[in-house]
Amino acid sequence: MTDLSRRTLLAGTAGATAGALSGALPAVLSATPAAAQAPSQAAAPAAGQVPSAYRYKVGDVIVTAISDGMRTFPMPDGFVRNAPKAEVNAALSEAFLPADQLSIPFTVLLLDIGDRRVLVDTGNGPAKGPVGLLQGTLASLGVDPASIDQVVISHFHGDHINGLVTAEGTPAFPKAQVMVPEAEWAFWMDDGEMSRAPDGLKGGFQNVRRVFKPFEGKVERYAWDKELAPGLTSVGTPGHTPGHTSFQLASGNDALFIQSDVTNIPALFVRHPDWQVTFDMDGDKAAAARRKVYDRLSADKMKVAGYHFPFPGAAYLAKEGDGFRYVPVLWQPVL
Amino acid sequence: MTDLSRRTLLAGTAGATAGALSGALPAVLSATPAAAQAPSQAAAPAAGQVPSAYRYKVGDVIVTAISDGMRTFPMPDGFVRNAPKAEVNAALSEAFLPADQLSIPFTVLLLDIGDRRVLVDTGNGPAKGPVGLLQGTLASLGVDPASIDQVVISHFHGDHINGLVTAEGTPAFPKAQVMVPEAEWAFWMDDGEMSRAPDGLKGGFQNVRRVFKPFEGKVERYAWDKELAPGLTSVGTPGHTPGHTSFQLASGNDALFIQSDVTNIPALFVRHPDWQVTFDMDGDKAAAARRKVYDRLSADKMKVAGYHFPFPGAAYLAKEGDGFRYVPVLWQPVL
Repeated sequence: MTDLSRRTLLAGTAGATAGALSGALPAVLSATPAAAQAPSQAAAPAAGQVPSAYRYKVGDVIVTAISDGMRTFPMPDGFVRNAPKAEVNAALSEAFLPADQLSIPFTVLLLDIGDRRVLVDTGNGPAKGPVGLLQGTLASLGVDPASIDQVVISHFHGDHINGLVTAEGTPAFPKAQVMVPEAEWAFWMDDGEMSRAPDGLKGGFQNVRRVFKPFEGKVERYAWDKELAPGLTSVGTPGHTPGHTSFQLASGNDALFIQSDVTNIPALFVRHPDWQVTFDMDGDKAAAARRKVYDRLSADKMKVAGYHFPFPGAAYLAKEGDGFRYVPVLWQPVL
Repeated sequence: MTDLSRRTLLAGTAGATAGALSGALPAVLSATPAAAQAPSQAAAPAAGQVPSAYRYKVGDVIVTAISDGMRTFPMPDGFVRNAPKAEVNAALSEAFLPADQLSIPFTVLLLDIGDRRVLVDTGNGPAKGPVGLLQGTLASLGVDPASIDQVVISHFHGDHINGLVTAEGTPAFPKAQVMVPEAEWAFWMDDGEMSRAPDGLKGGFQNVRRVFKPFEGKVERYAWDKELAPGLTSVGTPGHTPGHTSFQLASGNDALFIQSDVTNIPALFVRHPDWQVTFDMDGDKAAAARRKVYDRLSADKMKVAGYHFPFPGAAYLAKEGDGFRYVPVLWQPVL
């Protein structure tokens, strides 16, 4: 995989490129056309895993964490761009994770804010593999996709936006207002950026166009530091992508920071916040955003939800040495 | 609570005693007669928490962790018998837990070993409060209580045995062979032990008699180091109670240590294995069992399931300083 540039990994294009990468890693940010794929809800049969959903309160808001699944693939060379393999392996070993493969989970958040229902990111959609579980789990919870008022997107990687559309290419949440970061829209929708992008990244641009086509003229572009729903404010955390956005959810005296992809899996990047994942488009900028966010979260002892954290993906962060210690929030069996 | 002996806490008697203790703590090991109580499945309404169940494989065995709920109560003086309050508070703070209250979860394990279905411990039964969720969650999983072949009990505290009987006093798992540690039976069924016990502990003896009455002559008493079901072996870990038992589950090359109450909540007692919880009947013996078990688990990197660990209650333990670091097993959204 030495001939594989960071940008190729980021793009996650379909077909030949994906095949050349052992099939697994690019699918993490998959841009494979929906038409070529079958829904994968069947990946969790009745006798298999229980649908992974978990509720917690942030003030008066009810947060439902819903797993869209997890991808496991052989550990690629250079997954951590700026750390020696031996140090990466030591961090994995400390977390009782294997050195030869990597598992990246995906957790979407459903927010019930008063009578408004907001979905933050949408998962992998009708993708292949052990992902695309969101719609099946919503059904098991009795949540009608048409009951969702607002879909708020953090950034335009495929594992966050592909769930916006069904396998038939229609809106998956038919009554929802789709809201996207204006900086993200400006970058990915710019034909000049697409034409200048290396081949490996072009699929990502094409995927963005595919996903948003059914919403033409209807997508609301939001700025940073804006209240998108009561208590839900956009926070710019660029670096992972040019318009990458986190959210602060506040209700009463309680708060949750929805970090999106400020880090990938915590065993590596919460512990070692200066390490840069291959998916970060501007690694230095992403690392700076990470430091700023985590310094604040640890000082304020604020809960944080991470899209790629282990399900249910809510934790506290404590300063420890030069990095942070990840402390999962205690599971509440009764809401 | 200074006039409250360790033994009073342990007994968990009903009525006046419970009232005198703010109601909360003794209920953890509740011995309140079922007749005085209403089933509490309603504590998790449809619009509330999702039933807390999670499946994982140990070789060919399918383990289903099922939360029976969690009790939260004001932090009692002397909950940790042999550590200064300041150190206890520091450990709680490190885990982002409050100093003024304590939450103790209860997680029952259902094992599908080939076509044999085994339940390890039974939860709080039809008790008051945010517990007694086991039967409702089994129903939501489509698991008929009559499909359980074997119920294996670790020890005779109320939060482990009270689920053996319904509110009507009939067997909750009508077709199951009930298996109990012979050392535990010998202690709690001994009328001499009961008559010599301090008043605070007498309720515990009475509760054991109440719970096992519907099974008269039918309870199988097992020894330690015996295979109770294919791959499931009893391991003596006395101290918490005289006959307290853990289990080793082995299948193929995989294994799980089911520790029962070798420790209470990990933030305190995994981190500080020499600390003794007030519930340990013989604190020194319990601490010795803990050291022995955890030294082995950490050396072998073996998964461990704990009845009072945060749901879903499966973890690895790593030696760290004079104690152990608790590393939750990565949640698998697809089995």
